Parts: sequence; structure tokens; C-alpha cells
Amino acid sequence: MKVTLSALDTHESSFTPLVVIELAQDVKEETKEWLKNRIITKKKDGDDNDDFLTMAEQQFIIKHELENLRARDEKMIPGYPQAKLYPGKSLLRRLLTSGIVIQVFPLHDNEALKKLEDTWYTRFTVKYQPIDSIRSYFGETIALYFGFLEYFTFALIPMAVIGLPYYLFVWEDYDKYVIFASFNLIWSTVILEVWKRGCASMTYRWGTLVMKRRFEEPRPGYHGVLGINSVTGREEPLYPSYKRQLRIYLVSLPFVCLCLYFSLFVMMIYFDMEAWALGLHENSGSEWTSILLYVPSIIYAIVIEIMNRLYRYAAEFLTSWENHRLESAYQNHLILKVLVFNFLNCFASLFYIAFVLRDMKLLRESLATLLITSQILNQTVESLLPYWLQRKHHVQVKAKLQALKADIDATLYEQVVLEKEMGSYLGTFDDYLELFLQFGYVSLFSCVYPLAAAFAVLNNLTEVNSDALKMCRVFKRPFSEPSANIGVWQLAFETMSVISVVTNCALIGMSPQVNALFPDSKTDLILIVVAAEHALLALKFILAFAIPDKPRHIQMKLARLEFESLEALKQQQMKLVAENLKEEWREGGKEKTP
Amino acid sequence: MKVTLSALDTHESSFTPLVVIELAQDVKEETKEWLKNRIITKKKDGDDNDDFLTMAEQQFIIKHELENLRARDEKMIPGYPQAKLYPGKSLLRRLLTSGIVIQVFPLHDNEALKKLEDTWYTRFTVKYQPIDSIRSYFGETIALYFGFLEYFTFALIPMAVIGLPYYLFVWEDYDKYVIFASFNLIWSTVILEVWKRGCASMTYRWGTLVMKRRFEEPRPGYHGVLGINSVTGREEPLYPSYKRQLRIYLVSLPFVCLCLYFSLFVMMIYFDMEAWALGLHENSGSEWTSILLYVPSIIYAIVIEIMNRLYRYAAEFLTSWENHRLESAYQNHLILKVLVFNFLNCFASLFYIAFVLRDMKLLRESLATLLITSQILNQTVESLLPYWLQRKHHVQVKAKLQALKADIDATLYEQVVLEKEMGSYLGTFDDYLELFLQFGYVSLFSCVYPLAAAFAVLNNLTEVNSDALKMCRVFKRPFSEPSANIGVWQLAFETMSVISVVTNCALIGMSPQVNALFPDSKTDLILIVVAAEHALLALKFILAFAIPDKPRHIQMKLARLEFESLEALKQQQMKLVAENLKEEWREGGKEKTP
Repeated sequence: MKVTLSALDTHESSFTPLVVIELAQDVKEETKEWLKNRIITKKKDGDDNDDFLTMAEQQFIIKHELENLRARDEKMIPGYPQAKLYPGKSLLRRLLTSGIVIQVFPLHDNEALKKLEDTWYTRFTVKYQPIDSIRSYFGETIALYFGFLEYFTFALIPMAVIGLPYYLFVWEDYDKYVIFASFNLIWSTVILEVWKRGCASMTYRWGTLVMKRRFEEPRPGYHGVLGINSVTGREEPLYPSYKRQLRIYLVSLPFVCLCLYFSLFVMMIYFDMEAWALGLHENSGSEWTSILLYVPSIIYAIVIEIMNRLYRYAAEFLTSWENHRLESAYQNHLILKVLVFNFLNCFASLFYIAFVLRDMKLLRESLATLLITSQILNQTVESLLPYWLQRKHHVQVKAKLQALKADIDATLYEQVVLEKEMGSYLGTFDDYLELFLQFGYVSLFSCVYPLAAAFAVLNNLTEVNSDALKMCRVFKRPFSEPSANIGVWQLAFETMSVISVVTNCALIGMSPQVNALFPDSKTDLILIVVAAEHALLALKFILAFAIPDKPRHIQMKLARLEFESLEALKQQQMKLVAENLKEEWREGGKEKTP
Repeated sequence: MKVTLSALDTHESSFTPLVVIELAQDVKEETKEWLKNRIITKKKDGDDNDDFLTMAEQQFIIKHELENLRARDEKMIPGYPQAKLYPGKSLLRRLLTSGIVIQVFPLHDNEALKKLEDTWYTRFTVKYQPIDSIRSYFGETIALYFGFLEYFTFALIPMAVIGLPYYLFVWEDYDKYVIFASFNLIWSTVILEVWKRGCASMTYRWGTLVMKRRFEEPRPGYHGVLGINSVTGREEPLYPSYKRQLRIYLVSLPFVCLCLYFSLFVMMIYFDMEAWALGLHENSGSEWTSILLYVPSIIYAIVIEIMNRLYRYAAEFLTSWENHRLESAYQNHLILKVLVFNFLNCFASLFYIAFVLRDMKLLRESLATLLITSQILNQTVESLLPYWLQRKHHVQVKAKLQALKADIDATLYEQVVLEKEMGSYLGTFDDYLELFLQFGYVSLFSCVYPLAAAFAVLNNLTEVNSDALKMCRVFKRPFSEPSANIGVWQLAFETMSVISVVTNCALIGMSPQVNALFPDSKTDLILIVVAAEHALLALKFILAFAIPDKPRHIQMKLARLEFESLEALKQQQMKLVAENLKEEWREGGKEKTP
């Protein structure tokens, strides 16, 4: 492991390291020289107003500049004839795909990080997170995730508070459950709408609310035959759309269906185990076997988590193989695949217990076990385990460094060596997914297990801390990424809340207490439940439509902005007309003079 | 009636009259002179590139310019001290509200109109309409209405064709009805999605697809106390929002509810009449009384139409009294009021017959009578009657003119006199509303009366002609108005098609044939129907989501446009940077020289 800090030699002492480019061990000198020259030339061309920007913004700009280093007349990367180039090809991408550059990552700012940590999670008190500081250190996308996590936790508190007495006083009275479920439904619609407004306020403050969509470049892994892109007129690899469609419909779709089938198969094994445990308990009936009753659920919960994670890799591989041109298309196909499978994998057994077995006691037990096990697993696997591993590694590196007694600036050297071995943060996808599944556990069968919200709140209070730890200490610092909202997750959460209307209405309709109200006619009962469900769904859509997506003061400010830019445009055009007139008048004068 | 063609005196002979401003009879000379000066000054300021524009576009610009004639230092309109002005107030609006200007309307271009008519409707053959010519004569909004009418008619043809054999062979077999209804549901979703795509292609061709929203001025009738608008910083009338809310919730809402109640009351009278007619028929049983059976429905259909029209006036008055600042807010509140009432007024009786009385024979009769009567009434009241009245008036004016033996240019004089007495076209609202209600008749209970689509197609084939006649000969030429799509009507049609999923599923579930399949358990039947309904609704939403709103080639063109504008922006910024550098260099040079 050899690290050369070549930047240190060429720059003055006030130099702040921002981004690290890790090269492979055996890269030729000629290649290094060429790459350095290309980066420096690019830098000289640009304007230099780094002082006004936060470190995260500077790093974002460097990343953007590096990604836009493009081949001019080079036919290949100097020293690597097999790494072909064509005019306009991004150099960094070719360097990465041919293994010359191993990774590019921004460095942590230890001082700022320490400050951020102090206000964020090191003191274990319940308080608001410093979202604006998170944003200036990690960028908008990550700040929005923590903002959403905090908002969602606060939004769950009323549910948890109302749910507690149902559990404590064993209110089996379904009249009260109906009230709880109705509250739940309206609440879930309102919180999602209110989040949109809060999110708009936040991103307005950050200046990313009216973010112009950047023109999207092909994603790194995209490959094809060189041709002319009909939009940009530039030469770039083209991959025919029909081939992609074939891959999607003939390979990915059958594979996903197979996985779904396998997930259902595992579910049936779980029910067999459940029946076996119940049989054992009924036959012997000791205290040991009553604990045994929970074992199948716990095993199943662990298996679900493992399957979710394995499937995630398969989905990533498949979606990457589908060879989407744009990162956004890749993300959409990946999210769709993962959401469908995770939804079925996590909730199929609950649906089966609720609507086929109709065993409310089992549903409650199963729901509780799944929720709690998955929360414990997630927190362990996601943050604590990597943190522990990384601490161990940290100590090893320190020892090695002291043995080396390096005479160069040891702090920076140490920092680079440590951070380059850290794992990469793969984006907010998994974090949102976890919240999405949690929302499912809380809302889908809320009237059967009102305690779920309380568990979710407890989990999220620690989740904030473990996620913060993960961001600050476990993973490499990610490049900041501007964003205006939580994107497709808003839609996913809204869909979940629509499904929860249906399940909750069905559960209430099936409850013996409600059935007792209609001793003569099941038909009337069902019709009333269906009518109520339709009314609730209609109410949901009307609510979603009637609540404006942006608060009034933001609307006013945006209107003012629009008005001012229109006025400025008008002024500019007027000036243009005036200048043209002057020009004409002058030329008219000239023609007359001779 | 005295008409002075003052424009004729001051202009050269090649003058084409575009827009007429009708002044009140007793306007003072001083006021006329001032108004003429203001208009002419404005005209001189603007650039004059009328040659590139169609007549409709020229008229649109003149309207825009007239509406933007604003008070400078005038405190009142000269000659009318009671017509107060303040800086920035639109002169035209004050002139209209104080009754000095009676109306402003664009003139027909008789030659172009004749040509348009020839390709449009005078030859009674079934063919595509010349949408592009309609657009260049009447503007995008009206062309889009005719485009939608044509598209909708073609889209109904498959429904009509499939529906016919059901009627002819009296297929009471509900298996087949299930197929028909399912086809209907998917079809209605698909046609609405395909329309969006077709509409995008059309408006892309016209250049209005990516139309920048103009900054909206307060609507003409808006009044309030003078204050500073917080968005524009300009002085204008302000009206507190809470007062408007009070008017909406304390007056408009109760009034609408009262109207809905009254509509239900009239419905109950209709059912009494129906029962009376049935009783009479059963007692005597002659052929006369069997015709009598249809009379209550016909009377009810006429009453519905009258109530719809009366309510329309009330809704306009109320919405205007609510004093909305923007035209768009006014339109939204008006459309909401009118749609809710018309929906209930037209369909409440059908819902009552279908789901309370459960009398499918009466439902079919009632549906047929309502549909056919309303179609006949609409075509008569909307186009033929006004056309006949206007022809009569035309003849009178011609006779008068010949008696006058005017020595000025009689053709233009005659045209102005004729057109100024024509009715004003109040926008596409009523035309879309008619199609919306027709869509309701066709889709809500389609499986009971599959012939409805055929009647709708027949009606629309003549509707195209009568609407075209109305636009060309009955009403004043409207100012053209650019638009990108059919706006809120897309949402209204989609909502109707969602409701129709629910009603059709319910009808199928209620049919004796389907009931016969489940002799033992009504519960199973209902559960299956509800499950199918949910699946269909989910399918609808997935379809709406999966079909892209713009065709691929339009998406590509828009992407190309965006790319090019981004490139141009980049170039401009590069130039700016280069110029700044040059400037700095030059100044640096200067400083050194001395």
C-alpha cells in the first residue's frame, strides 16, 4: 500500500485537501503526468470563486469538473492502448472502467465534522437535528433524508400515544378500533401532505426548490456501439431500445416472478413451522414451548432480511445488465424491482394470516415479531457492526503508522489512508426503504396492533443516532447532491397509505365485534364496509388535492421571483430594441452624410 | 344606432380592419380624442412585424396591447370625473366598467372564413376536420376543443360497434355484459391517456406545448381597497382573503347544498310522476298509455336542462361575487360548482334507480330518454335557434342598409353592424361540459344500455357541424387564446372514468345472471366483485402511470430543445467570462502604462 501525496508538493501550505483520486498501484508515470496536466489545464480555464462556497459545494464542483474532463484528440489513455477513447468521452469514466483510477472520494473536514457531531448525536438527548448544518456538510439529498426521518418520527408520536392505552387496557372493543383506524387513515394522508409543504420550505431556504433539471449524461456503466446521439448530435455509445426491452421482459421480469414465487414458498415453510411449534406447545404445554412459539416468527424475520439483501444484489446486477442509458432510468427500474419484492416478502405472510387464516391473535404476534426483529437486525447490521469493524481497523492503521514513523504530514496521510478503506455510502435508498417497510408495519394492520407506532418511534429515535454515526464515522464522506424533494419515495409512501385504507377497512369488517352488530345479514355488513372504504379513499384523494403542495408564503415568494425575472426579461428586451433602433439611426445617418 | 368608422379616415386604403371597439352612444369628444391618442402612442412604441403573424395572432396582440394600456398620471378618464384612475390601472377595464366602451371584439375575415367553412362543415361528408386551419383562424383553445370532440367521437366508435349487437340480438347473457364492461373500462382509460399524447403532438406542432405561464393580472371584475401588492410591489386593489373565505363557506357552499337538495326534490317528483304513469298504464293498458310511460322521463330531462342552465347563471354570479383576484381561481371555483351540481342533477336519478330501486328495465328506459332528449335539446338551443334568429336579423339589417343607401364603404360598415349584434362566445366551458355529461351517460351504466355509445357517436357527428356553424356564423369571432392542453377537463374525464369502474362493477354484481352463479352465498359474490373492482382500479392507475404523457418523438424533440438552450447558455456565459477577462487585462494594461 503506497500513497504518494503529490498534491502536497506542488501547492502552497494553506492548501486544504478536498478530493482524493486513488490510482491503481502500477499506473505508469506517463499516464499520471498526462492526467495531472489535463486536470490542471481544466482548473486554469475555470473561474476561481471557491471562497464563497461550502466545502461540500467545492467538492461537488470538483466532481462535476472531473466527470466533465473529456477526450479531445486522444485515441486512448496514454500508456494504456487497450483503454480506447473517442472525442467527448468522459476521461474519468474510462479511467475507472479500465481500473487505472480505483476511486474518487471527497475528504472529511475533521474540524467541521467534530462540530457537526457535537450538535447532532454525541449527546444523547432528544432534540431537533441541525438539518442546516447537515445540509452544508453532506448536501441536500442526505439532509432531506434526516429531515424526513425526524419529521416521520414526530408524526408517529400521536399514533403511538393513542395506541398505548389500547394495548395497556386491552381494549378489545372494536368501536374504539374503528375510531383508531379512521384516525390512522386521515393522519397518514395529512402527514404526507404536510411533509411536502415542510420539504418545500426547507428546499426553498436551500435554494434547490426550483432546481433546473441538469442535462443527463449516460450513466457510467452504459455501453453500446458508437453512433450519433440524435438529441445532442454528439458521438456516443448507442444501445438499441428493443434489446433493452427484450432483456427486461424476457429475463428480468421472469426472474422477479421467480423470486416472488420463492418468497411465497418460504412463507409456506414458515407456516408449517408455526403449525409444528403450536402442535408441540399444545401437546406438552410447558413454559419452554410457549417461548418456542415465537421462534418460527423470529427465524422467518431473519430469513426475510437475508432474502431482501440477497435480492437487492440480484436486482442491482440485473438492472445494470439491462444497460439503461440514464441514471434516472436505472434508479426507477431498480426501485420498482426492489419495492415489489420487499413489499411481498415482508407483508405476504401478514396478508395471508389476516385474510386467509383470519387468525387475529397470530397476526398480532407475527406482526410484533417481524417488526421488532427487523428493527434490531437493521440497526445492528447497518451501523453498529461496521462501526466496530472500522474502529478495529483504525487502531491497526495507527499502530502501523507509528511503526513507520513517517516524516511527511502524518495527519493528512493518516486521514487519507483511513478514509480510503472506509465503505462507500450507497445513497439514501436503503434508509428510505427501511422507513417505507416500517410505515407498512405501522399502518397496514394498525387496528390489530396499535403498539406498532410506539415501537417505530423508539426505533427511529435510536435510528437517527446510528444513521448519523454511520454517515460521520463508518462510511467515506459522500459527494453532496442537490435535490428538491424525496422524489419517488413520496409516491411510494402515498401508495402504501392507500393500501392501508383497504386493509384496515377489511380488518374492521372481519372483526367479531362488528359482525355482532349485523347478526342477520352479512351482505349488509360487507356493503357498508365497502361503501365506507370508498368514501375514505375519495376523502383521501380530495384531501391530497385540496392541501396545496407549497405553503402560502413560499408560493408568494416564488410568484415574486417569477414576476421579477419576467420584469428583468422585459427590460432586457426593451434595451435590445432601443439599441437596435440607435444602430439603425446611426447607420441611416452615415448613409446620408456622404 | 350610429357607427363612425373613424379608422377609415386616417389610414391608407390597404387597411385591414382587425378589432372593433364599440363606444357608448353619448361619449364625449374629449374622451374619444384622448383614447385615440393613447392607443396610437402605444402603437408607435411597439415594433411592427405584423406581416409574419396570422390575423388571429394580430388580434390577440392588439387585445393584449389594449389591456396593457395603463394609467400614468391621469386621475380619472377625461370627461368622466366619476371614472377614477390610479397609476398602473388598466384603462380598458375602467372604460368597460364605467360603460364608456361597450365591447371590444375582433372582426371576421370573410374570405378566410369562407375558405375555412368549405373545408370544415358545409359539405356534409364524414372526414377529418382541418384542425390546423381552425387553429390559425380561432386560436389554440378552440382548435383543441374541436380536436378533442373529433378524437372522442372516433374513440367512441369501437364502443358503439361492440354495443350494437348487444341491443340488436337482445343479449341478456351477463357473461357477455361482463366482457363488455371490462372492455369499456380499459378502453376509457386508454383513450384518455392516448388523447394526452395526441394533444401533446398537436400543441408541440403549434408551439404552445412548453408555454411559459404568463404573469396573471387581476381579473376584470376584481375590486378592493387600494394597497401594495406584495408580489409585484405595485399599487392595486387588495381584498382580504378571509372575507373571500367567509363568502365561500357562509354563502356559496350553503347555496350549492340547497340547490343540490332542490335537485333531489325534483327527482322525487319525477319518481312520483313515473309511478302515476305506470299506474295509469296498468289500469287501462292502451297504446296511448304505453307512450305516456316515456312522458315523465322526457319532462324530467327538459327540467334537468333548464335547472342546469339556471344554476349556471347563479354559479357565475356567486363566483364573481366571491371576488377572486385571478381569472384562473375564478374559473376553478366556477367549474367545481357547476360540475358537482350538473353531475348530481343529471345522474342522481340514474343512481337511485340502479342502486335503490334496482329496476334495470326502468334504468335502461330512463337512461335512453335522458341521453336522447338532452342531445336534441342541446343541439337546438345551442346552435340552430341562434342561427335562425341571427339569419332573420341579418336580413333586417341588409334591408335597412339598402334603404339608407350609405355612400361609405358599405361592406365593412355592414360587417361591423352585423357582427356587433352577434352573441359573444363564452368560451369552451359549455361545450366541454356537454361532452363530459355525455361521457357519463355512456360510461357510468354502459353495461345496462350498450346502445348509448352509438347515440353519442351520432350526436357528435352532427355536433361537429353545429358547433362549427356556431363558431363561424352565430357568434362574434372570439379572441384567440393559446393553450397547451384541455386543462382541468382531463382530470374531470379521468374522475368520471374512475366512478364508472365502481358503478359498472356494482351493476354486474347485482345482475340476476351473476347472482345465479352464487346460489348459496351472497357474501362470496360481493367479495369477488369488490376484489375485481379493486384490481380494475389498480390496473387503471398503473396504466395511467405507465403510459407516457408525451409520445417518444416529442420527448426527444423537447430534450433536443433543452440541450440546445443549455448549450447556448453555456456559450453565452463563456463569452461573458472571456469579456470580463479582456476588460480586466485592458484595465491592468492601463494602470501599468502611466
